[in-house]
Amino acid sequence: MAGNTFGNIFQLTTFGESHGLAIGGIIDGCPSGLEIDIAAIQQELNRRRPGQSVYTTQRNEADEVEFMSGIFNGKTTGTPIAFMVKNTNQDSADYNHIAEAFRPSHADFTYHSKYQNYDYRGGGRASARETIARVVAGSIAKQILLKEGITFLAYVQQIGSIKAENLDNISLQSIEKSPVRCPDETASAQMMQLIEETASKGDTLGGIIYCNIKGCPIGLGEPVFDKLQADLAKAMLSINAAKGFEYGSGFEGAEMTGSQHNDIFNSDFSTQTNHSGGIQGGISNGEDIYFRVAFKPIASIMQAQQSVDKKGNSITIEGKGRHDVCVLPRAIPIVEAMAALVIIEHWMRWKMYL
Amino acid sequence: MAGNTFGNIFQLTTFGESHGLAIGGIIDGCPSGLEIDIAAIQQELNRRRPGQSVYTTQRNEADEVEFMSGIFNGKTTGTPIAFMVKNTNQDSADYNHIAEAFRPSHADFTYHSKYQNYDYRGGGRASARETIARVVAGSIAKQILLKEGITFLAYVQQIGSIKAENLDNISLQSIEKSPVRCPDETASAQMMQLIEETASKGDTLGGIIYCNIKGCPIGLGEPVFDKLQADLAKAMLSINAAKGFEYGSGFEGAEMTGSQHNDIFNSDFSTQTNHSGGIQGGISNGEDIYFRVAFKPIASIMQAQQSVDKKGNSITIEGKGRHDVCVLPRAIPIVEAMAALVIIEHWMRWKMYL
Amino acid sequence: MAGNTFGNIFQLTTFGESHGLAIGGIIDGCPSGLEIDIAAIQQELNRRRPGQSVYTTQRNEADEVEFMSGIFNGKTTGTPIAFMVKNTNQDSADYNHIAEAFRPSHADFTYHSKYQNYDYRGGGRASARETIARVVAGSIAKQILLKEGITFLAYVQQIGSIKAENLDNISLQSIEKSPVRCPDETASAQMMQLIEETASKGDTLGGIIYCNIKGCPIGLGEPVFDKLQADLAKAMLSINAAKGFEYGSGFEGAEMTGSQHNDIFNSDFSTQTNHSGGIQGGISNGEDIYFRVAFKPIASIMQAQQSVDKKGNSITIEGKGRHDVCVLPRAIPIVEAMAALVIIEHWMRWKMYL
Amino acid sequence: MAGNTFGNIFQLTTFGESHGLAIGGIIDGCPSGLEIDIAAIQQELNRRRPGQSVYTTQRNEADEVEFMSGIFNGKTTGTPIAFMVKNTNQDSADYNHIAEAFRPSHADFTYHSKYQNYDYRGGGRASARETIARVVAGSIAKQILLKEGITFLAYVQQIGSIKAENLDNISLQSIEKSPVRCPDETASAQMMQLIEETASKGDTLGGIIYCNIKGCPIGLGEPVFDKLQADLAKAMLSINAAKGFEYGSGFEGAEMTGSQHNDIFNSDFSTQTNHSGGIQGGISNGEDIYFRVAFKPIASIMQAQQSVDKKGNSITIEGKGRHDVCVLPRAIPIVEAMAALVIIEHWMRWKMYL
Repeated sequence: MAGNTFGNIFQLTTFGESHGLAIGGIIDGCPSGLEIDIAAIQQELNRRRPGQSVYTTQRNEADEVEFMSGIFNGKTTGTPIAFMVKNTNQDSADYNHIAEAFRPSHADFTYHSKYQNYDYRGGGRASARETIARVVAGSIAKQILLKEGITFLAYVQQIGSIKAENLDNISLQSIEKSPVRCPDETASAQMMQLIEETASKGDTLGGIIYCNIKGCPIGLGEPVFDKLQADLAKAMLSINAAKGFEYGSGFEGAEMTGSQHNDIFNSDFSTQTNHSGGIQGGISNGEDIYFRVAFKPIASIMQAQQSVDKKGNSITIEGKGRHDVCVLPRAIPIVEAMAALVIIEHWMRWKMYL
Repeated sequence: MAGNTFGNIFQLTTFGESHGLAIGGIIDGCPSGLEIDIAAIQQELNRRRPGQSVYTTQRNEADEVEFMSGIFNGKTTGTPIAFMVKNTNQDSADYNHIAEAFRPSHADFTYHSKYQNYDYRGGGRASARETIARVVAGSIAKQILLKEGITFLAYVQQIGSIKAENLDNISLQSIEKSPVRCPDETASAQMMQLIEETASKGDTLGGIIYCNIKGCPIGLGEPVFDKLQADLAKAMLSINAAKGFEYGSGFEGAEMTGSQHNDIFNSDFSTQTNHSGGIQGGISNGEDIYFRVAFKPIASIMQAQQSVDKKGNSITIEGKGRHDVCVLPRAIPIVEAMAALVIIEHWMRWKMYL
Repeated sequence: MAGNTFGNIFQLTTFGESHGLAIGGIIDGCPSGLEIDIAAIQQELNRRRPGQSVYTTQRNEADEVEFMSGIFNGKTTGTPIAFMVKNTNQDSADYNHIAEAFRPSHADFTYHSKYQNYDYRGGGRASARETIARVVAGSIAKQILLKEGITFLAYVQQIGSIKAENLDNISLQSIEKSPVRCPDETASAQMMQLIEETASKGDTLGGIIYCNIKGCPIGLGEPVFDKLQADLAKAMLSINAAKGFEYGSGFEGAEMTGSQHNDIFNSDFSTQTNHSGGIQGGISNGEDIYFRVAFKPIASIMQAQQSVDKKGNSITIEGKGRHDVCVLPRAIPIVEAMAALVIIEHWMRWKMYL
Repeated sequence: MAGNTFGNIFQLTTFGESHGLAIGGIIDGCPSGLEIDIAAIQQELNRRRPGQSVYTTQRNEADEVEFMSGIFNGKTTGTPIAFMVKNTNQDSADYNHIAEAFRPSHADFTYHSKYQNYDYRGGGRASARETIARVVAGSIAKQILLKEGITFLAYVQQIGSIKAENLDNISLQSIEKSPVRCPDETASAQMMQLIEETASKGDTLGGIIYCNIKGCPIGLGEPVFDKLQADLAKAMLSINAAKGFEYGSGFEGAEMTGSQHNDIFNSDFSTQTNHSGGIQGGISNGEDIYFRVAFKPIASIMQAQQSVDKKGNSITIEGKGRHDVCVLPRAIPIVEAMAALVIIEHWMRWKMYL
């Protein structure tokens, strides 16, 4: 009920604050006998971790994952998989200036109101550093699903008002070779320039991430409340800074007519178009599942801002600390991880009825 | 796990198919001692029911709700509240032509694949008629929350490409006096004209619903997975035909900079702007909560369409039956109901820690 | 959270009060495509219903079950199965005398304290009539499990201090031919005599029910909290009037030594003894699962009793109404039903990992 | 679904194997602002840990608990409390002889069958060492409930066939001064003698633990499935080696008549007797809640036993390793911890409806 668990069958419960001892979690319900590729998990963490390039925050932590249980002789045992990443580079002095203040559009005010005693350092539990646990669990889910032929591919589609448009032949390679994880080379270059310009003003940027899931069997998703798109929407909106979700035709679909929007069947039950986004009646239909997630600009800006302290007195907050200008390049593995957690949950529910 | 339950504390479990005996549900966890205004529930059902005007489907059912348990001497008892609305006007012959066919962009194919034996009549469990149970439970939630000063107001903001723009002084009255539930009179008239034109072509329309929630206390929502916006997103994407969700600045927020987007505090901890949409760090901050939901056009069109039968043979589906051209006017009480179910869930979780 | 749902995968949510309109429930998660034998369900309800013989209460209701959803063409559809049994013989006047009083060892006082507004007629929600919904759902579970070779057989092992001892060759027939459902003919006759004697004094009796489950595959049950015996214990203690649960060697096992108690393996991994009761480490081992449930005597006696009214004033409660002297013969199908709900839940969890 | 989580509101998820790196867990849902007395938690762990006296196993580990999150400035923050106890004294060589064998009445065979790949060392996940996490979480629950006036007191009532009978004036002190945690001095001495005699034969003992809960408000427990006694029964049967549970009059109540068993009210709504065990209709009535738990003798005996290897070949298992003769003295804090987890769960549910 306190919201730190995701999933029912393949269940992740997470813990940890940005400047506490560690971030971690427990995965319960993972099948036994699976080889876990720890290097692949670490690779996903590396995609998420700070300090990857000039375009991401310079807080430099190795973010090495340790497993405390649930793996024996290199394989899962079916018992809980506990893991953690120690926080090694926390400099709490960076945050003394906000111990008594509320930063605009941060979680300081709401956490203070809800909990009174909260760890304000670096955002505490509200820090995006919490997503480390999601990436670890999502990476394990992806490894399991990969053996079933299910794959996930996300990229940055928009930063600020710069939109990727040349989106043919997208691959993990074409995404990863862009420092901002946008496979359109032209847009990628423009995005990098925009980030530099924005950084020089001490400001920040938002954008849109696109994610595609290939290879899902027909039948994932449960009517009526646990429709596949509903669980994907919840997963995405649970990520820090996410402001919107759409799948298939999305908001544009609102302007189409039924005769334009309907996906006509081929004789093999595939469809000629895919406005449905791979989901009909809440259940996967075998086509690609795709969706987009909007992220707001990061609230931590390097400009001075008006704000209030805990008594409501007007104060000025100076921008300090080490922050990204744009969270999207690092959010790619998080979006994929959350998508994988949704799909593995529904894949296991589906298996139960086979 | 089979997805027919919503909520954990204030928990709704629903049942029923479009052409079965009844649609209904059980509400578990409703506090005791509350007077239930059955007429108000019926009023919400009337807003949802077909046959309200020329702009909605002509299937004409009274949709009268009956309560089987949980209410004694006019007040709730704290035990499960079971209710149902009998299906009185089902003419299954309308659907004989689809017993062996899959209608494009309907749930026929996925239900058939997932369940083999499914009630295809009128969409069966996948029919929007299922939302009757949501409206009943949501109406009870709204009654409880109203006493706490929490109110819900949704309206049609867009149909096809016609967008409401004059959105000052919106009230339940200004919404309800529009047959399409759009409070902008000019846009409302254009929408009605568009619906008529589209109907004459046998086609259908989608659009966007806007919803505003006033009066939430500070502190609703649970980090990290059960953020208030995450649960709202799931609730909205669980509604038939919904394709997207955004709250606060939403997709537009992706194009703003941090200095534009941050909501500066006043000395009473209210904010000067509300790009946050009333939620920060996943927790309500006392400002209005607002969001938008995109709906695709209805899949049941009155034009002939190419499709396939269960063996993959090419067939032509003729448009038959009684269908809306645009679901949005009738979806208003559904959006409000699902929003109320999310808020009451989090309000009760919040109360537990007071 | 309000406790009216049992199970997670095969999930039963129930509703109804003794003297309300109906008792019923919703089963969510039942696999699709299963033929449901409604007559067999009715047969189980008949074993539970009052008025079967002079040894059970004379309230005479047909207790006919109606299904409102989830079954199409005689088979389950995978969508929620809603059902109800209407209350047809409620005479609320029987209970006017307790509207303002608390009966000793009934739920009147605790329900009043917890809910204030509660349906006191016939015990309301606390009536054993609530178990009708359990019997319906359990009967469906039994039908599904029977096809897997899993069977349930419960009988009355003790009433008052009379214990069945001749327990060879027990069958459904040998149980059902006893009016008190005790397969030991000698004990059965003594139990009937004891019931008659006790009835003549206006008093009531308790006893012990024994239940055996055959045919479970190896592997049902989840460490560490959802051990199979833990879920059976919860299921049994959730039945009205149950006071104790033991499985395998039970309380007697406490007096044995390890060398006496350990079950030695045969070469086919069966065991030479079965003190483990078919469960080791919380997981079924393929041997018979067996357990015993103790029931207290019924609180509704026909003797005058001292009690208090809602203000604490001393009053005398006269025994009125139609009550069993001993609930155990009618509790047999309830024990089997709850056992079946536990086993099907764990059987479906187990299938998921195959 | 995989069974490693207990509770819904105050939720404990545990991890760890006997000979893995650590045993631990995450508590989600703990209220914020509470001072946690870490020394008191350690004290409970010390009551559970091996090597306390000659009457318990000599595996000597400090079992020091570390907290990784959820506590800031000495108080809870409302975010997940993660903790662990490192395994420091594991000597895996002790268990090489069972890598290929199934010990009688252990979990080896069922874990092997269910998971194939399992950590057999020291029982792995099935080891009673897993209960460390329960004791930590239960100790926190006890601290919170103590401030509400709710207290827990368990003691050993029976070992083998020796029963405590002088049970007046029981206190934590009178329990703790007995090396076997039996407050009856005479019985305690006999039990110690029995343990020594049994140890000398390489055999083991079971027994019965009694637990009393004082100070619960009226109203804890949810009809119909989450009756307070049902959740207590599940909690107790989830403990390793537990074979039975009874509350109030228990199995003896089966032999009483209604007129003997009914608890007559006093004018203050307390009752003259307490056969109900403090619970009526599944809901606490303000009287003491008390129950008894039967434990089988430990399966690890020091005698040679016939058994089978993984291929079904007959083998002889020699008793090796460091084991208790009787688990009950060390199980006292576990029983109290599980009781506390049940009560805090229901206490928080109850608070929600105030």
